[in-house]
Amino acid sequence: MISTVIDQPNAEAVADSRIRGDEMHSLLRRLYPICRSITGDGVRDTLRILAERIPLRIHEVPSGTPVFDWTVPPEWSIRGATVVGPAGKVILDFADSTLHVMGYSEPIDARVPLDVLRAHLHSIESQPDLIPYRTSFYRRTWGLCASHRLVESLEPGEYDVRIDSSLFDGSLTYGELRLPGDTSEEILISTHVCHPSLANDNLSGIVVVAALAEELRRRRRRLSYRFVFVPSTIGALTWLSRNVDALRGFSSGLVIAGVGDAGGHTYKRSRDGGRMDRTVIHALQTSGRSHAVVDFVPWGYDERQYNSPGIGLPVGLLSRTPHGTYPEYHTSADDPDFVQPSSLEDTLALCRTIIDTLDGDRTYVNRSPMGEPQLGRRGLYALLGGTGDIATAELASLWVLNLSDGEHSLFDIAERAGLPFAVISAAADALESAELLSPAASPSSTVTAGVTHGSQA
Amino acid sequence: MISTVIDQPNAEAVADSRIRGDEMHSLLRRLYPICRSITGDGVRDTLRILAERIPLRIHEVPSGTPVFDWTVPPEWSIRGATVVGPAGKVILDFADSTLHVMGYSEPIDARVPLDVLRAHLHSIESQPDLIPYRTSFYRRTWGLCASHRLVESLEPGEYDVRIDSSLFDGSLTYGELRLPGDTSEEILISTHVCHPSLANDNLSGIVVVAALAEELRRRRRRLSYRFVFVPSTIGALTWLSRNVDALRGFSSGLVIAGVGDAGGHTYKRSRDGGRMDRTVIHALQTSGRSHAVVDFVPWGYDERQYNSPGIGLPVGLLSRTPHGTYPEYHTSADDPDFVQPSSLEDTLALCRTIIDTLDGDRTYVNRSPMGEPQLGRRGLYALLGGTGDIATAELASLWVLNLSDGEHSLFDIAERAGLPFAVISAAADALESAELLSPAASPSSTVTAGVTHGSQA
Amino acid sequence: MISTVIDQPNAEAVADSRIRGDEMHSLLRRLYPICRSITGDGVRDTLRILAERIPLRIHEVPSGTPVFDWTVPPEWSIRGATVVGPAGKVILDFADSTLHVMGYSEPIDARVPLDVLRAHLHSIESQPDLIPYRTSFYRRTWGLCASHRLVESLEPGEYDVRIDSSLFDGSLTYGELRLPGDTSEEILISTHVCHPSLANDNLSGIVVVAALAEELRRRRRRLSYRFVFVPSTIGALTWLSRNVDALRGFSSGLVIAGVGDAGGHTYKRSRDGGRMDRTVIHALQTSGRSHAVVDFVPWGYDERQYNSPGIGLPVGLLSRTPHGTYPEYHTSADDPDFVQPSSLEDTLALCRTIIDTLDGDRTYVNRSPMGEPQLGRRGLYALLGGTGDIATAELASLWVLNLSDGEHSLFDIAERAGLPFAVISAAADALESAELLSPAASPSSTVTAGVTHGSQA
Repeated sequence: MISTVIDQPNAEAVADSRIRGDEMHSLLRRLYPICRSITGDGVRDTLRILAERIPLRIHEVPSGTPVFDWTVPPEWSIRGATVVGPAGKVILDFADSTLHVMGYSEPIDARVPLDVLRAHLHSIESQPDLIPYRTSFYRRTWGLCASHRLVESLEPGEYDVRIDSSLFDGSLTYGELRLPGDTSEEILISTHVCHPSLANDNLSGIVVVAALAEELRRRRRRLSYRFVFVPSTIGALTWLSRNVDALRGFSSGLVIAGVGDAGGHTYKRSRDGGRMDRTVIHALQTSGRSHAVVDFVPWGYDERQYNSPGIGLPVGLLSRTPHGTYPEYHTSADDPDFVQPSSLEDTLALCRTIIDTLDGDRTYVNRSPMGEPQLGRRGLYALLGGTGDIATAELASLWVLNLSDGEHSLFDIAERAGLPFAVISAAADALESAELLSPAASPSSTVTAGVTHGSQA
Repeated sequence: MISTVIDQPNAEAVADSRIRGDEMHSLLRRLYPICRSITGDGVRDTLRILAERIPLRIHEVPSGTPVFDWTVPPEWSIRGATVVGPAGKVILDFADSTLHVMGYSEPIDARVPLDVLRAHLHSIESQPDLIPYRTSFYRRTWGLCASHRLVESLEPGEYDVRIDSSLFDGSLTYGELRLPGDTSEEILISTHVCHPSLANDNLSGIVVVAALAEELRRRRRRLSYRFVFVPSTIGALTWLSRNVDALRGFSSGLVIAGVGDAGGHTYKRSRDGGRMDRTVIHALQTSGRSHAVVDFVPWGYDERQYNSPGIGLPVGLLSRTPHGTYPEYHTSADDPDFVQPSSLEDTLALCRTIIDTLDGDRTYVNRSPMGEPQLGRRGLYALLGGTGDIATAELASLWVLNLSDGEHSLFDIAERAGLPFAVISAAADALESAELLSPAASPSSTVTAGVTHGSQA
Repeated sequence: MISTVIDQPNAEAVADSRIRGDEMHSLLRRLYPICRSITGDGVRDTLRILAERIPLRIHEVPSGTPVFDWTVPPEWSIRGATVVGPAGKVILDFADSTLHVMGYSEPIDARVPLDVLRAHLHSIESQPDLIPYRTSFYRRTWGLCASHRLVESLEPGEYDVRIDSSLFDGSLTYGELRLPGDTSEEILISTHVCHPSLANDNLSGIVVVAALAEELRRRRRRLSYRFVFVPSTIGALTWLSRNVDALRGFSSGLVIAGVGDAGGHTYKRSRDGGRMDRTVIHALQTSGRSHAVVDFVPWGYDERQYNSPGIGLPVGLLSRTPHGTYPEYHTSADDPDFVQPSSLEDTLALCRTIIDTLDGDRTYVNRSPMGEPQLGRRGLYALLGGTGDIATAELASLWVLNLSDGEHSLFDIAERAGLPFAVISAAADALESAELLSPAASPSSTVTAGVTHGSQA
């Protein structure tokens, strides 16, 4: 627990430590050229760069390791790829875009006729200038991706195709950071790290989650937090399979991905609902941000795994424009220019509010419950009567007093009042200072109430 | 249970056995001229014609039999009726329309002045060309119905009125068909058979229910089904009074009536809600049919009796345009031309979906509940990644896996997913074949869960 | 209980006793000139005038008496106030408006320069012709209120300010009337009586509550009713502190205030919901009145005190245009012309419906629960069939029969049917006369069900 103590500077330092959008965007630009996949040096290099900022623990899990119904696949390494046309001209080069090679493509070094090349060449007819992102993780084949315009322009003849990749017994890499708090109750924050040069999906999630971790490790924490940076699906499953017992300590979680575009936020509920859903929705509603809330579906990012019946951890998804619904999605148009620094900064601020709300929740008992106490003589209420107005702080005080019966936490009160948690929390501080509130005798953690998930294995 | 076995042909035969709208409409035209009432040969003849297609059991219950708070009334027989005007001209003849005689009219053979005739002559001022349908089942009087135009044209003078009817100790007739299934849990399908020459109300219900029974008896059934063709109110009460003990085996039911007009479907909820309500509403919603759902009111067709406090069977009403809200209702304009063969066929298809959903529901346990199982290597999932799309069948598979914890039936899953039950059911079949699902150990019937109705007597 | 007996004339007398809007408006005009505050002769005079009509018990509670977290303040007496300008002209005189003196102003008799006067002079810049209502109950200072136009016109110079007030050990005054009923369950009706010459807030509430009490004491009552006329906040708290044990007998309550303007009704829910909320909302909905229902907030009138955690009595607020939202609020424009006699009469009628619903609720058991009983032979149902219509009384009868299983009270039934309680109640009377209903064996009071409030002290 020493790290907890070390991590707690004073409040001013906390305010100073806020990471700006341009800082996150710089990191995003640095990570952009790296060719990530579900295994390989791309993930390793990405995590090492993040580890310059946060004390990330980097795990390597050998190929062939059983993971629930799955097996950790061979490691994939990609060094280069070119296609040389009949006239001897290089028409496609991995050096131009990591998207040109289909993820997990087998190596090839052969002269093939156009029709064979075309059968292995992916493009999007409706977006003829963009290179698509395609993968074939679990079926061995070779493949390349290119703009449809290029594909259409290819003339009959023989093409020299070379993909300098290899598939070998290596390992799957993921990063993890645990920030212990005053209680062992733990919150999962997860993002995927397996996409090559794609900026919104998924570098935006990586840089915001890293910034959140960086900020959070500098402050005192009531709850514990686990940040995981994992390759999609197999990485999340691998982390889960190695943390089955620890899952009982988790109360909820959040996947953060696709938060850099200019759209408003979208929150996708967890399968079973609960505190994380309520907290994120309350934060969105009381902040006045444009947003949408959508129901859980068992399709999307790694919330699919966390909300599976055997895991049952209520994990929501925080995005901006939903994946698959914007034209840049999984194409070369999802580049750093598509990501707005202001969006990154705003999502980080939202995450800060979410964490503040989860972490700062507490339950009081009103020590003067018969009617309202006389706030005026304590300097907590306007003394000139008749104006018909009430200040937000006064209204917040009345709400806290009215519902602090030991059964409603400050978050419950904030939710009912429709006021930001920070306003309710500040009112409670003032009322506690005035000795009008006492901490509830056995402050049942409202966060863990009713948690029944965990391994069924 | 022999009949169950005999009734089960192969799947192709089931598809071939679908009854078309024009077949139902032909039957409707054949039944149209018959003068039905709550007792009498009209009901008998109708049921005998239906019995040509389905092995209907026809019950006769003697006049005077006590039925809860009621008594089976005298049987009514009507052979003819005429009114001859002052000039000796026949101005009204039962041979032209069975609606001309008020249901349960006493016989009369007398010369009466115009004012007396008018006091017994029913018409609709706002629809001057139509003959209304009127009855006086429980107050003895004589009556005739005619167009308002005719009534207005009558000149002062003496009229020879002859109604050749009789009221006598006979019996009330109803038809019943029980189709046993693999379980004893039973579903009630009820329609009334007491209206004379009126096509939508109620011949449309009669022909659709008969067709549904005809189709259903040819297939394997998990549940049992009871089809009842009863005179309204007293017939339903009579059936109930003779089946009080059997009611405990019923889980829910559906009254089908007024399903031949060109309007969209209307489903009226049962009083207490439950599986039938959920099933019909889900079938309507996921089929994209134009429809309305209305709350229960204790007024309407025989769902009034089934949902009474002493019976408590949750029975909904499936109609198209609600009774009493279309101008043809209970008039001579409700003739066979008002009924669309396509409406009959579409309602039968909807009923088929409802039965398939009720009958095909089952509960599984996901055998690979830790995260998602690897569907790709089982041929159940696309292997090319990155496209951003998911096929409906794949999404259905993910839903089934996600919620198959032994507590959610396939119908529960279909409802949450907002996908047609057939799609969810097919996905479950594929997953079971791939050994990813097992039938739940004690598959609690979600249909009967919580059933507490039955006799209070 | 003698008073109960004396209070019960026959039904005709009840109808005759309805108090008209112009009668209430006359009383309002008589009360208008009195300068009320939270203590003093203004409240005393007001209650004495009300006591001419209803046997109000007037309580005096000495200054300095502890009341929960508060103390009964010194009594305030105001006899007059003037400001004489530099030119010797009287520019402000309490005799013109009781609003000119800030409530609880200290006495002063001094010559002050303009800037000192201005610091004690309250006005509303955006409503320059109106005198505002201001108070300073709990901070000692002197103050005057005037139109902004007057304030702006003041010329530099010395002003003779005289406020002939006094603050002394006296008492706080409130009025109370208990109308006992057949059961001890009690309903609280509360209004505040502390505003000076302001007509809608709060004379409209005073005259309607007084009229309601006057009418209600003349009729037989199943429930008991407590009417309290209290100074806002400290008066309500004082009444509560002296009735802590009695609170257990109260099931719910209603604050009535601001019911004289021309707007539609607004009902503000109690904190914990329950019977009063359901009753008022049902009465508003089924009467077709324009209305709004708003959620509880711990700000407003004395419902703040009644709904506090230590009291926990579910008390709603019935108003018309919400306080603070109309421009006349707490200004000299809230005069008798702002109050409509028709609004007073309509609110009284609404209150009558609310009381009739609360008081007339009862629970029956259907004696013929198997299907519907035969209403026609009992004269409770039309005997001519086929018309497609049903009379409201018949529909009400069907609802009462359908849901009278001993667990649904007539109010529950009225709420589900969406029919006025009076219609349901009349149907039940007819059905009981026809021996189709019996009173439920142990008619659990649905009003008190679940009441858990009362003193935590």
